Amino acid sequence: MRKIKAAVVGYGNIGRYVVEALEAAPDFEIAGIVRRASSVASAGESKYPVVSSLEQLEGVDVAILCTPSRLVEKSAAEALRLGISTVDSYDIHSGIADTRARLDEIARQHNAAALISAGWDPGSDSVVRALLEVCAPQGITYTNFGPGMSMGHTVAVKAIEGVKAALSMTIPVGTGIHRRMVYVELEEGYDFDTVAQAIKNDAYFVHDETHVTKVESVDALLDMGHGVNMVRKGVSGKTQNQRFEFNMSINNPALTSQILVAGARAVLRQKAGAYTMIEIPVIDFLYGDRDQIIRRLV
Amino acid sequence: MRKIKAAVVGYGNIGRYVVEALEAAPDFEIAGIVRRASSVASAGESKYPVVSSLEQLEGVDVAILCTPSRLVEKSAAEALRLGISTVDSYDIHSGIADTRARLDEIARQHNAAALISAGWDPGSDSVVRALLEVCAPQGITYTNFGPGMSMGHTVAVKAIEGVKAALSMTIPVGTGIHRRMVYVELEEGYDFDTVAQAIKNDAYFVHDETHVTKVESVDALLDMGHGVNMVRKGVSGKTQNQRFEFNMSINNPALTSQILVAGARAVLRQKAGAYTMIEIPVIDFLYGDRDQIIRRLV
Repeated sequence: MRKIKAAVVGYGNIGRYVVEALEAAPDFEIAGIVRRASSVASAGESKYPVVSSLEQLEGVDVAILCTPSRLVEKSAAEALRLGISTVDSYDIHSGIADTRARLDEIARQHNAAALISAGWDPGSDSVVRALLEVCAPQGITYTNFGPGMSMGHTVAVKAIEGVKAALSMTIPVGTGIHRRMVYVELEEGYDFDTVAQAIKNDAYFVHDETHVTKVESVDALLDMGHGVNMVRKGVSGKTQNQRFEFNMSINNPALTSQILVAGARAVLRQKAGAYTMIEIPVIDFLYGDRDQIIRRLV
Repeated sequence: MRKIKAAVVGYGNIGRYVVEALEAAPDFEIAGIVRRASSVASAGESKYPVVSSLEQLEGVDVAILCTPSRLVEKSAAEALRLGISTVDSYDIHSGIADTRARLDEIARQHNAAALISAGWDPGSDSVVRALLEVCAPQGITYTNFGPGMSMGHTVAVKAIEGVKAALSMTIPVGTGIHRRMVYVELEEGYDFDTVAQAIKNDAYFVHDETHVTKVESVDALLDMGHGVNMVRKGVSGKTQNQRFEFNMSINNPALTSQILVAGARAVLRQKAGAYTMIEIPVIDFLYGDRDQIIRRLV
């Protein structure tokens, strides 16, 4: 069996977990890791080639983009223009459809495929959300997140004056409503109440119940566990009160990275164009003989 | 918008609920109902044409097969040979892959598509089972059914001598193990203990914990509610103890029928051939503009 040659683009938290997931997958080999030029110089010893540009790697089938969401579209376009298919976990919900449309055009021009937003939400949760609407087209779905660290909210807190280190935890209180528990270390000379008020007034927090606590060490609180509780009550045909629930309790970057690797497999099975996970058959994400998968899972 | 013309083949419990789900779907119209000749004669007034053969209906796009599982393949083959695509909820797990392979050949020959086993298990549960393996390729999934009536087990009890009426309930006891609670009305002159022992010795029951109770009226116990609790604990990449759970509490024929109708929509979007649900993108089952669906659900 010829293995799929994957490049890992970006080597932060997600990039490291993607390398683990690729090493655990029987059908992949790692072509190399693409990092910023400054990081390449200081990378030291590595099991895999470390380069500063995708073009420096040979025979790459798929690029797994582990860059921050705001850099994903640029990284994807660069890879697609080289004819290399891509997968990412772009997670800005409001930007997904338009990003997909723009990448779709580039992908088709260069006969490659892009899978976007292939993490857990957006991603596997999106597949469940869509499936629950198949089962009960009329009704309401609530997606409840946490307890777990919100990257976006944590970054927003860190940007506030007087904050030395921060952690924003998302706590589910039901029906898609979330409490924000914010833990901060202060810079010397700043007043806690002033900083706490600034956090509560920030656009990220102003609509949610937010509690700010001063701590000696944010590091001592860090945990990459996260959770989801998705609930739908709806109507199948003309029958009311159909109930569905999906729960998970997971290591966040490990799950994101595993789905990215499955997505790298799936995207190579698609025609040229850009896709979200709900547009690809679930079987395409799985390793193994299709007939055997059907016998085992259907 | 031109509506999809669906024929309902078989008019038992599932067929009636399929008519409801078609009436509730904005993109379908009912071409007619296909019943046995003996049932057509006694059908009386109906909102829709009632005929004894699919060929008697005009312009059918898709046939929704609501016949018992053992008759599904024959019904599907007949429809496909007329160039009419099909969807069914064939539920004999061990026969799915082979049935699919045989129908695939017929479907391709007649430029039509067949979606098989599109109920809730096999069906929507299969999509969840496959998705959980995408999220954590290594590990164990347990599918727990019930509390709810098992059609197969109930039929098996009814076949035993001395049984006048029967109900076999499936009770989940965890890790995919089930208790069978069997309720029977006896024919006159039969000994309860003898009948109970015959039930426990039947191939359907011999491997499970089975309790048999004599009742005055099985009808008084009937309820079409059912449930699923699916649990997976597994490994994402090299990270252990990832936890997933899917629950539902549903009216059984209503959910089966809703998925059949969504499947009728999805199968018309596929190339000629035969499919199971995990081989079709979830978005294809949904009504509405694809870009809007992506904006709303991904």
